[in-house]
Amino acid sequence: MPIADCTRLSIHTITTKPWSLEQCLAGYQRAGVRGLTVWRQTIEAMGAKRAGQLIRASGLAVTALCRSGFFPARAAAEREQAIGDAKLAISQAAEIGAPMVVLVCGALPGMPLAQARAQIRDGIAACEPCARAHRVRLAIEPLHPLYAADRSAVNTMRQARRLCEEIGSPWVGIAVDVYHTWWDDSLEQEIAAAGAAGLLFGFHLCDWRVDTRHPLNDRGLMGEGCIDLPQIRGWMEAAGFAGWHEVEIFSDSHWARDQHAFLADIIAAYTARC
Amino acid sequence: MPIADCTRLSIHTITTKPWSLEQCLAGYQRAGVRGLTVWRQTIEAMGAKRAGQLIRASGLAVTALCRSGFFPARAAAEREQAIGDAKLAISQAAEIGAPMVVLVCGALPGMPLAQARAQIRDGIAACEPCARAHRVRLAIEPLHPLYAADRSAVNTMRQARRLCEEIGSPWVGIAVDVYHTWWDDSLEQEIAAAGAAGLLFGFHLCDWRVDTRHPLNDRGLMGEGCIDLPQIRGWMEAAGFAGWHEVEIFSDSHWARDQHAFLADIIAAYTARC
Repeated sequence: MPIADCTRLSIHTITTKPWSLEQCLAGYQRAGVRGLTVWRQTIEAMGAKRAGQLIRASGLAVTALCRSGFFPARAAAEREQAIGDAKLAISQAAEIGAPMVVLVCGALPGMPLAQARAQIRDGIAACEPCARAHRVRLAIEPLHPLYAADRSAVNTMRQARRLCEEIGSPWVGIAVDVYHTWWDDSLEQEIAAAGAAGLLFGFHLCDWRVDTRHPLNDRGLMGEGCIDLPQIRGWMEAAGFAGWHEVEIFSDSHWARDQHAFLADIIAAYTARC
Repeated sequence: MPIADCTRLSIHTITTKPWSLEQCLAGYQRAGVRGLTVWRQTIEAMGAKRAGQLIRASGLAVTALCRSGFFPARAAAEREQAIGDAKLAISQAAEIGAPMVVLVCGALPGMPLAQARAQIRDGIAACEPCARAHRVRLAIEPLHPLYAADRSAVNTMRQARRLCEEIGSPWVGIAVDVYHTWWDDSLEQEIAAAGAAGLLFGFHLCDWRVDTRHPLNDRGLMGEGCIDLPQIRGWMEAAGFAGWHEVEIFSDSHWARDQHAFLADIIAAYTARC
């Protein structure tokens, strides 16, 4: 089924990185977008309270707060700090009306992956009571194996699902990002399994450019790359996902453009290519 | 167990890319290396017959021929061409005394992954009788998901193992490269499963640089990156692997160095860090 309209389209504020929160709210609204995922850097200067006021006044829905995590650390004090930051993010999410915090779980060059993964599990488990108390979900985002050395030691849907099962809380699930997961030959089955377990919390859209020029900031607009987006969306829907379609694009080249024009392209690509 | 000596060390000729086959043979021998994996580009000008003569005269063991594959293609004629090339590689391997051909399976931007994967399976199956006739093994090398768009749609050990099971031939197995597989949280179990099924044909060593500067040609010398090499080697040995340890490093910066000095560093890193 083609996408009929923009009622489920949400934009990550990092996607239009040059814009302030006020510009995001005005720009998205003008373009007919009804949801946004707030990156913490976008609201850092004003704080969550003021951000919440602005967002509520705009009428836009907040689909998530990005991001916290980075749990692995050598010293116990640093691990406590990461857990403290995640709890802060949970309270900020509650303040701005975000139903979930996206977790980029972290990794430490030189730390054995098994140890990093144990620290991630322990870190999320330590945050769970806070999430439950605030009624804010924690969405584990498995990151592309490309980032296993230093950004996240959680790299597949299967691994994220097993991590959720270990923690065993309705407040802990998964944010599925096509950029990180598209290559996986078990993706369809894993989305189905995650859906059956009630773990599909978020769905992030962009594209994988075949000639990627930068490991972080060269994501493609939907249609600029090789990901079969309608197929993955179909798998999400077949698995029971009925949430927002969040556009999250890190792109030096798109950030350098007029952001209104970029947003218009996003909407065109969303309705035509997803 | 630390590595005692270099009796199982093999070098891919691409690792010392500036060297001709003659220079590789002389240089490796001078350094005490007893095996080499021959890249086809190294012997292209002289041909396999002459290469076989030189290698046999040197006394070095050939551990594999790299590489063929790239099976997916839009036109049937192109797919036939890829199969023909793989058969040619098999005959070249037989000629130079290589027990296996390493397969980089291919991928085509824009072709659905499921279709590419089916074409890969069909391509390998079409080559199997030739491999059997020549008594040359085909080693499927799962490539890092980073390369799923354009180099290989086979991206995990699990996927490679299932592909081998589908084809069901003792002549088709897996080349495990630490660069492509280190991040996988199921790696230990997958190596064990592959070992139990008799599928562990090859083992490639290098390292993953945390600050990778180029997606293809910035592999690290063992110890320059974050891979726990003794751990993975231990998993291979526990799974029954008793073959060569092949050093395969693509590195613009190491290729720019004196290759004798680089080879000395490889040997030092092999005995100290693997």
